[in-house]
Amino acid sequence: MKDLLVNINKAFESKARLGIMSVLMVNEQIDFNSLKELLDLTDGNLASHLKALEELEYIAVWKQFIGRKPNTTYRATDQGKKAFESHLQALENLIKGNR
Amino acid sequence: MKDLLVNINKAFESKARLGIMSVLMVNEQIDFNSLKELLDLTDGNLASHLKALEELEYIAVWKQFIGRKPNTTYRATDQGKKAFESHLQALENLIKGNR
Repeated sequence: MKDLLVNINKAFESKARLGIMSVLMVNEQIDFNSLKELLDLTDGNLASHLKALEELEYIAVWKQFIGRKPNTTYRATDQGKKAFESHLQALENLIKGNR
Repeated sequence: MKDLLVNINKAFESKARLGIMSVLMVNEQIDFNSLKELLDLTDGNLASHLKALEELEYIAVWKQFIGRKPNTTYRATDQGKKAFESHLQALENLIKGNR
């Protein structure tokens, strides 16, 4: 059982983070508001999860101006993609163990 | 994306709870120390997760004496098994969406 759980990554435990990473696996980059809309999260909740994933270097933030408007986009790092893949694999193994 | 996340159950998010429910899906019942050993958790940590799952009526606690020694065992309720199955199904769908 310990073996089945060892690759489950605490960083991806919550529904919000599973959602964020899932979106970033299939979208090269995405801005804050689109992500918020897609995941139906509040500003504060989304921001805190993004911050945590950024600190782990699983996502990277890109800040720029479009004209005079600030625009912040997010993308998954290679490290983040790899870690998320391992997490999904661990969940898959756990599911198989339960079927 | 919201659809993919809707059946992910916050009650089962953490590694500890995934572990507890996985054990209780394949074991009719289990005592506290065996569960602790299997999942490599501290007393306090395991107790708080069990308490939460009990309050949700996903697990049931059975207290008895074996001779003079108290013995507490845990089992998944039908409701708990059903909810956990839905959660696993939701994770599986999320994984499929990412592959």
